[in-house]
Amino acid sequence: MEEINIKRFLFEEIDKQNDKILIKEKEHNHLKNVLRMKIGDGVIATCNNEFDFVCKIVDIQKNHTILSVLESRQNLSNPKFDVSVFQALIKGDNMNLVVQKMSELGVSKLFPFESKFITSKDSKNKINKFQEIANQSAKQCKRSRYLKVENVYKFSGVIDILRNFDIVFFANVDEKTTNFNEALNKLKYNEKDKIAIVIGSEGGFEDNEVALLKSLKNTISISLGRRILKAETACIALTAIVMYKIGELQ
Amino acid sequence: MEEINIKRFLFEEIDKQNDKILIKEKEHNHLKNVLRMKIGDGVIATCNNEFDFVCKIVDIQKNHTILSVLESRQNLSNPKFDVSVFQALIKGDNMNLVVQKMSELGVSKLFPFESKFITSKDSKNKINKFQEIANQSAKQCKRSRYLKVENVYKFSGVIDILRNFDIVFFANVDEKTTNFNEALNKLKYNEKDKIAIVIGSEGGFEDNEVALLKSLKNTISISLGRRILKAETACIALTAIVMYKIGELQ
Repeated sequence: MEEINIKRFLFEEIDKQNDKILIKEKEHNHLKNVLRMKIGDGVIATCNNEFDFVCKIVDIQKNHTILSVLESRQNLSNPKFDVSVFQALIKGDNMNLVVQKMSELGVSKLFPFESKFITSKDSKNKINKFQEIANQSAKQCKRSRYLKVENVYKFSGVIDILRNFDIVFFANVDEKTTNFNEALNKLKYNEKDKIAIVIGSEGGFEDNEVALLKSLKNTISISLGRRILKAETACIALTAIVMYKIGELQ
Repeated sequence: MEEINIKRFLFEEIDKQNDKILIKEKEHNHLKNVLRMKIGDGVIATCNNEFDFVCKIVDIQKNHTILSVLESRQNLSNPKFDVSVFQALIKGDNMNLVVQKMSELGVSKLFPFESKFITSKDSKNKINKFQEIANQSAKQCKRSRYLKVENVYKFSGVIDILRNFDIVFFANVDEKTTNFNEALNKLKYNEKDKIAIVIGSEGGFEDNEVALLKSLKNTISISLGRRILKAETACIALTAIVMYKIGELQ
C-alpha cells in the first residue's frame, strides 16, 4: 500500500481477538462525511502507542466505522528523545500554535504553567482543547505517539519536576554570559536523557523565578540574541534548535 | 532614559535641519489615541535604516505628532548577516505567521513565490499587508531595519535570483542522503555571505523544481527529519536553526 497519502485516524479500542478497530465520533464523522471513504479503502489507525495499524475499512455505520487490521508496524516518526517543554501561560491563540508546533517538532510532553508575570490565564481551562490539537497534529506529522499536554502547574511545581531532568534549557532574556552555541556543543546527548526547555510568558520571569531556575543543577541559561522574540517564537525557535542538536530533525 | 519599555514608532520623513520627526497616520493614532502619550514623553522612532532615533514628543496635533530628536544611536538588534527566505505561497494566515517570525528571527528579505503545487494564491495580493506585519514586528523585536517583503516571483525567477547567493539551504522532504548537522558544521559563515533558505508550499515541489534547486552550485538540500512538518513550521524551524548556526541568536 502506498503510504504517502494514506489517511490516518485515531482510535481508542482494539478488539485484539478479531483484529478489529472501532473508529468513533469526530474521527468517524471525518472519515465518513468529510473524506467520504468507502468500504475496502485502506487507512492507518493509531492509538497513542508505538504502532501504526495498517487497516482496511470493513464496515461504515451511522455512528462508527469498523476497520480490519492487516498489519501493525513500528511507527518511525515518533521522537527517540524524551523532550518536555515548559511554557508559561500565554494567550490562547499563541498556546494553540505552540501545542501544534511542539507536536510536529517531536516534543513528548508540554507543561503549561503559571508564573508571576503571566498576563493571560485564558489557556488554563483549555487543556482538553490543546490535547485535541496535539492529537490532530499527530495525524498530520505522522506520529503514532501523541504529544501529551499536562495540566497547568504552579511555578513551584515546575521547579520540583525540573529536578528530575538531566538537562534544562532555560530561555533567559537577561542572560549575558552563556555562549549558546558553546553550551550546546559541549553537551553529550543520550537518548536516555530527560531534556527540558523552559520558556516564559510575554511578561517574562520575576527575578526570584530566574534565580530558582538557575539554581537547578542541570540548568543551562541561554539568551536567544539581540532581538526580542515573542514567547511563542522563543518556544518554537529554541525547541527547533535543541531538536536539531540532538538529532531529532535528521 | 530607561530603554526597556520605551515605545517605538515608525516614520518616513526627518527634517534634518531642525532635527524634527513627523509621526503620521496609524502610528500617530496609536501614539495619541491608544497609548494616550503626552507632550514631553520619550519615544524611539525608526525609519528602516541603521538608527534608533531617541526623541521627545514636542507637539501632538489632530493628524500628526512632532518629535524632537535628542540622539541618534546605532540600533543593535538589526541582523548582521544577510539572510533571505524564499517561501512558496501558502495560506494567508500561515504566511502572516511566517512574515512575523522571519522578522523576529532576523531575516532581511522574504520572497513569496509561485511553484507548481501551490494550493493557495490568496497571499499573492497581500504584499502590502505582509509588509505592514513586518514593520509592526520590527517595533516589537526592536529592529530599526525592517524585514523587506518582496513581490511574488515565479519559480524561474527564484532560480535566477538564487544564483547570486553564496549558500542556499533547501528544505527537501525527499532528501535521504545529506546529514544536516554535518552539512551545517562544515560551512564557514561570513557576514558578507548572502544566505538563502528555500521552503515549499503544503504541496511540496515538483520533481523538476527539486532538480533545478539541487542543480544550483551552492545548494545544500536537507531533510528536516522523520516527521512531516507543515510548511510554516519548516520555515520557522529551519530559519531558527540557520540563525543559531551563524550566530544571529547569540
